[in-house]
Amino acid sequence: MDMYDLPSEMLSAKARRATDPPIAWLLRMPIEDPEIISLAAGFVDEESLPAEEVAECARELLGSDEINASLQYGTTPGFLALREEVCRMLERQGAGKSISPNDVVLTGGSQQLLHLITDALINEGDIVLVEDPTYFVYMGTLQAAGARVTGVALDEKGIIPESLEEKLRSLQRSGDISRLKLVYLMTYFQNPTGTSLAWERKQRLYEILSRYCELGKTTFVVEDAAYKELRFEGEDIPYLKSLDSENRSVVLMGSFSKSFSPGLRVGFGWVPRQLHDHVLRQKGNEDFGSSNFCQHLVHRALVTGRYSRHVEMLRLRYRKKRDLMLRRLAEHFPSDVQVIKPQGGLYVWASLPEGVNTGCDGELFKEALRIKVLYVPGEFCYCSEPGVAKPTNNLRISFGMVTEEDIAAGMARLGEAVRTVLK
Amino acid sequence: MDMYDLPSEMLSAKARRATDPPIAWLLRMPIEDPEIISLAAGFVDEESLPAEEVAECARELLGSDEINASLQYGTTPGFLALREEVCRMLERQGAGKSISPNDVVLTGGSQQLLHLITDALINEGDIVLVEDPTYFVYMGTLQAAGARVTGVALDEKGIIPESLEEKLRSLQRSGDISRLKLVYLMTYFQNPTGTSLAWERKQRLYEILSRYCELGKTTFVVEDAAYKELRFEGEDIPYLKSLDSENRSVVLMGSFSKSFSPGLRVGFGWVPRQLHDHVLRQKGNEDFGSSNFCQHLVHRALVTGRYSRHVEMLRLRYRKKRDLMLRRLAEHFPSDVQVIKPQGGLYVWASLPEGVNTGCDGELFKEALRIKVLYVPGEFCYCSEPGVAKPTNNLRISFGMVTEEDIAAGMARLGEAVRTVLK
Repeated sequence: MDMYDLPSEMLSAKARRATDPPIAWLLRMPIEDPEIISLAAGFVDEESLPAEEVAECARELLGSDEINASLQYGTTPGFLALREEVCRMLERQGAGKSISPNDVVLTGGSQQLLHLITDALINEGDIVLVEDPTYFVYMGTLQAAGARVTGVALDEKGIIPESLEEKLRSLQRSGDISRLKLVYLMTYFQNPTGTSLAWERKQRLYEILSRYCELGKTTFVVEDAAYKELRFEGEDIPYLKSLDSENRSVVLMGSFSKSFSPGLRVGFGWVPRQLHDHVLRQKGNEDFGSSNFCQHLVHRALVTGRYSRHVEMLRLRYRKKRDLMLRRLAEHFPSDVQVIKPQGGLYVWASLPEGVNTGCDGELFKEALRIKVLYVPGEFCYCSEPGVAKPTNNLRISFGMVTEEDIAAGMARLGEAVRTVLK
Repeated sequence: MDMYDLPSEMLSAKARRATDPPIAWLLRMPIEDPEIISLAAGFVDEESLPAEEVAECARELLGSDEINASLQYGTTPGFLALREEVCRMLERQGAGKSISPNDVVLTGGSQQLLHLITDALINEGDIVLVEDPTYFVYMGTLQAAGARVTGVALDEKGIIPESLEEKLRSLQRSGDISRLKLVYLMTYFQNPTGTSLAWERKQRLYEILSRYCELGKTTFVVEDAAYKELRFEGEDIPYLKSLDSENRSVVLMGSFSKSFSPGLRVGFGWVPRQLHDHVLRQKGNEDFGSSNFCQHLVHRALVTGRYSRHVEMLRLRYRKKRDLMLRRLAEHFPSDVQVIKPQGGLYVWASLPEGVNTGCDGELFKEALRIKVLYVPGEFCYCSEPGVAKPTNNLRISFGMVTEEDIAAGMARLGEAVRTVLK
């Protein structure tokens, strides 16, 4: 224990359970060595950030009556006009009808909403069911909350209904089903696999969950649609939320981070009424409202049409980057590497032959690092469950932040590392 | 139980303990009835909000290389250049020497930092010592965390050393002193009383605390200096933090909300090293960083000198509003109403003769509401401790948001209500 360590009994139970995010050091690496090409970061494309759009919104805002209100304290649920715009947007997208802005909350990115819901519902030992693999940052939040996280396998159409049912049956047998508080699903271009949950699967899942759990009473579903706007191709899929016509059981959350600007930190949630007040109370204690100014900027981007034009542009741009990444992968990687082609989002999930270890202590990671390219080892995205071995042969690469030049160069390097290791 | 109530056993222990903030409905009232003059809200002066300054900062930012970085994700501790500026500012103010930006964290207002520290340290039943009266929003956070909150009386020079020592001795006797995790002090123009903690008191307090507690190991002090910049008169007082030269025991927190713009939601903390990582881990789970764009705006306001010019202007402006409020109070209120004249901040604390009940269920509040003026009943600001009766004869009025016209009219109404009740 050096002078900077606190005895752990001094910490809250939550702090004792918290650990540093696994990829914090991984994200820091390219900053320390700029020659490293990082395919690891889930950041967004930098050149296409809406600088002009934000500049114009700011200029208009600063010349309007709204300016003082935007620089003053806002309210805990957030700027009403933006909540109303979110409702209209969700209605247009078919999430529901006559959505009330009173059921919507604006948060510091959608991560804060995940945290608020977790804080409102989870006691130590409560169960959260996630896709396996899933979003590793949220696994950190769940770990600190003391949740038991259990995973359900997914394939190219998303989480597998039979596996879900098996899991629920096993929770029922062990008497633990009443402790299942949350089912966390990324339904569009999931992080890390890029898969979306098919419509017939959504219906099956909802039906299965309704059979095993008291949805909206003991168990809530979180539909995280952070990447929904970034669809490059294929037909849109209705929200899972559209099955919850009474706003009882599904928290639908979205974000303007991926589709506009993460630096503004504006996320949103349409929250079941019986959960809404509890989420707001937590938010009142946490920060009593996110940046009002940023909410006004996003509102203006929405009502002026700048937002939707920006999203159109982003779709083309990311599509091009995805295509480039996949082309280079086909070119440089051995043919037995399997890839799910994502129809949107920021990620490509690649599976190497079984037996290859993509982890930080494995050959591949070391070789990749030696030739200065980074990826996220797939094992970070799997749940840790007693008696269940995590697959070790996957990796997540992102075409989000990296430039086209770096995609080309990075994929060549990564392909070389894979070939070296597979030799 | 209506359809929107969740059975409480479904909630986390934290959510079960959380309640709606006592003054939420009080703040909503003037929105619903615009004829009401609210002296209750602790918001800032609206006309003087830095619209021009933010516009210029935004314009410069949007024309610079920095723009893309500001719209991208930031880091969990926040924009490094702003953390460095905060260090320089704190050094100039005498808080410490060679302050490292690695020990500074930027948060969504200082409220978020209060929440993070509480989350990192407090388990149910842990003790937090506060000034009595204190900042009621933080009492809500502490209540949700399950803390036992105990108060120490204050007078015009801040918290009373003898009362503190007595409280510590009593905790020692009951064997509870090891559970004293936090001592929360607002050292400048405290909310609600407007008093500052005198320098000799700071020294005595620090010495007493060092004698009874293992500072920096079992117990931390939070020095909340949110109102420090708003000094109208009198000599500046060194920070309590300046006594903690090794950055071991005192969290110094500040905010750009009161001195610049609350709508940007940028607060900061200089956090003891052994606590810093734990706070960052909580923040990583909560939102992995506050609005990067707002941090860039505040940074630019600081380095261009716009911030300090704005603060100069604010001091004059609030001083004028305070003077007006006190003048009207002397004019309209009975002479046995006692007032602490604040040398800064946003609040006036008035004490009516004992026996008068300023609470929401009392005569005065009802009469005031009838003639459409609002204040914060003092009882909201006192700790609830078993066996200790809260004083009921105080009220907090703020000259922050209200215009000069409304100060004049509001104080006349409030004086009338007081005279009616005292008749």
